[in-house]
Amino acid sequence: MAAVITLTTDFGLGDAYVAAMKGTILGINPSASLVDITHKIKPQEIRQAAYVLSTAYPYFPLRTIHLAIVDPGVGTSRKAVILRTPRADFVAPDNGILSYILDEHAAGPVVAGRVRLTPESGLEAVAITEPRFWRSPVSATFHGRDIFAPVAAHLSLGVPLADFGEAVETLAAFPIPIPRTAPDGTITGEILHIDSFGNIITNIMGRDLPGDAARLKITAGGRVIRGLCRTYDDARGLLALIGSSDRLEISLKNGDAAALLQAGIGDEISVQHQIK
Amino acid sequence: MAAVITLTTDFGLGDAYVAAMKGTILGINPSASLVDITHKIKPQEIRQAAYVLSTAYPYFPLRTIHLAIVDPGVGTSRKAVILRTPRADFVAPDNGILSYILDEHAAGPVVAGRVRLTPESGLEAVAITEPRFWRSPVSATFHGRDIFAPVAAHLSLGVPLADFGEAVETLAAFPIPIPRTAPDGTITGEILHIDSFGNIITNIMGRDLPGDAARLKITAGGRVIRGLCRTYDDARGLLALIGSSDRLEISLKNGDAAALLQAGIGDEISVQHQIK
Amino acid sequence: MAAVITLTTDFGLGDAYVAAMKGTILGINPSASLVDITHKIKPQEIRQAAYVLSTAYPYFPLRTIHLAIVDPGVGTSRKAVILRTPRADFVAPDNGILSYILDEHAAGPVVAGRVRLTPESGLEAVAITEPRFWRSPVSATFHGRDIFAPVAAHLSLGVPLADFGEAVETLAAFPIPIPRTAPDGTITGEILHIDSFGNIITNIMGRDLPGDAARLKITAGGRVIRGLCRTYDDARGLLALIGSSDRLEISLKNGDAAALLQAGIGDEISVQHQIK
Repeated sequence: MAAVITLTTDFGLGDAYVAAMKGTILGINPSASLVDITHKIKPQEIRQAAYVLSTAYPYFPLRTIHLAIVDPGVGTSRKAVILRTPRADFVAPDNGILSYILDEHAAGPVVAGRVRLTPESGLEAVAITEPRFWRSPVSATFHGRDIFAPVAAHLSLGVPLADFGEAVETLAAFPIPIPRTAPDGTITGEILHIDSFGNIITNIMGRDLPGDAARLKITAGGRVIRGLCRTYDDARGLLALIGSSDRLEISLKNGDAAALLQAGIGDEISVQHQIK
Repeated sequence: MAAVITLTTDFGLGDAYVAAMKGTILGINPSASLVDITHKIKPQEIRQAAYVLSTAYPYFPLRTIHLAIVDPGVGTSRKAVILRTPRADFVAPDNGILSYILDEHAAGPVVAGRVRLTPESGLEAVAITEPRFWRSPVSATFHGRDIFAPVAAHLSLGVPLADFGEAVETLAAFPIPIPRTAPDGTITGEILHIDSFGNIITNIMGRDLPGDAARLKITAGGRVIRGLCRTYDDARGLLALIGSSDRLEISLKNGDAAALLQAGIGDEISVQHQIK
Repeated sequence: MAAVITLTTDFGLGDAYVAAMKGTILGINPSASLVDITHKIKPQEIRQAAYVLSTAYPYFPLRTIHLAIVDPGVGTSRKAVILRTPRADFVAPDNGILSYILDEHAAGPVVAGRVRLTPESGLEAVAITEPRFWRSPVSATFHGRDIFAPVAAHLSLGVPLADFGEAVETLAAFPIPIPRTAPDGTITGEILHIDSFGNIITNIMGRDLPGDAARLKITAGGRVIRGLCRTYDDARGLLALIGSSDRLEISLKNGDAAALLQAGIGDEISVQHQIK
């Protein structure tokens, strides 16, 4: 079975960068199956890449290899790493881009920008330090092509994790924002992502909301939405629903909710249980 | 031979949605060959998707499976269907996105938004109702990932059409606009599509124009073009030609005809045979 | 091993054009591995396509076939050609899109818009004239689908170069701009490309700069940069470094250098060795 390698970058689609990575991979493993997650991450936006990657990778076959290259520190002392989870391998700079993956596996709290991988987390990681798997010479500005892509390709051929470098015990991470619940039951969360339809995706999970969906009052950008819908078609204007990643989502039927609300990443969203 | 599965959506290229569909397919059929038609359909623009799909699919190998997911009614009572033609299979919501395919096979007239599939049309369709081919649970907002993609993948493995659900006798469709010919021979058509170059593509077919191309007078956006060119390079300014899908097309040499004419989908274009 | 075929076009990602080419290829060689370089070349910008192709192709496996279709003269008397280098095959209109490839192989000087292929260059080329490898009928406006794609597919199946048409001794090319060195040592080059980050890529090669990088004074868009950095992270504002194709590059940390400098393709960049 052909190995699947995915790519998530901020390289855009107008340059040769993505193709140079793909060509490098195919030169090492011609039967690799390459799938783009996205190359339209905003330049240097590690958090956006971390989010998008986390919502795509669960749907790939077991043991898929995910390259995630948003790397403003390329060529500096930031490490390059491979993170192995029970499901997949991630090849990435050690700059927080794997934060959601670490959070999901309860790897541990973020302390001074790093998470310690406990044995119970089921996670393993190595620093990529063994140059025999790299292109040579290595450009100081394009490790995607010269280090990450060839390492992913060799990994897809079955090279053991330990061959790429020494185990690491901590990985860079940012804290995943968690909704707060006030004494009166009001849940205050924030916007994690705005998709290309303008749907507003929050950090409030469907499973954390009280059961009586019709009685919820959602406040976003100064607008109030009453009750949860089930589909994008269930209301005429602004609506709230639980989206396909189990997250509370604000949407506008056949429109762009984020533009209407002038919403941005990090903005607050609150949910109250209506008194009557 | 690997099955080819194409994807046409309005999901854009910045999110995880397309990748989640591809990962789901590869989890079921790892040797599927995935080809993007486009993910840049304007959100909810079923007609645009229908047009683009109809101009791409004839060039794919026999028995290619085409996923077409522009689905504003996702999660509602609109059906999900598979349409089988002599050439290909289409997996899509039953919302009109297959209108050009139905029209091309002379499936029948559109009555109250639906076309009846006659035996003579050579078409077969089933409603996708059999949950054993779906992801579970099914999100109400992302059938692309949870129903359409796994169904296409199972179809590519040879699962018989009838296993996915009951046969359906009608499919949703919108009428394909047909040019009118006035008593004086003037043909009035409309703009079906504007491509990324700004070329204006109409519903007037090359085969329907009178033979003497030099004598045609084409009126579009208040501008008159005299005669047909053969190539984009044959005139200095605005020009008309028969494009690569045998459609009358208005173009601007090294420029954007649609911007110049402020043209939009549905605008009228007329063709007259010049008196002298 | 599956043949790799890459695609570089100005077709954009919103239409059926790219998919029609891919479908055509897969109909002839179902096991071809298709990789997009880019489809976002500015319409008709042959020079931009030539540059991007030249920076992507070296990273692909030996004997990769590169389709390069920016073709404002489609359907006119401009030739269609295959260029074979020791590393790869290029299938393209004969309009200058292969200029960097020809320059790199020292094929010869550009005389009246053409380069003569000497035997020493190691290059071979044929005109694509043999219709038995084409789709039929051939649209006058879409040779990408009807000629170039099927020719690339047949080439990937091992059809000998000579079967596609007669050898040609010259190919269209534009002169690659070369930096000038003044008597005082000042090097004056120009901007070849601006990438999607806004990095400004010049025709001044790293290997042509004097060794003492700290003493260089780079002037671009009226701004002066002193010294070369090694990475994008090594300075707070505008910086200069040698990029991943060994070219002098002007960058802005976490920003868009080209926007800041209002830089455009062809603008001058100069490098001086500081007196003290």
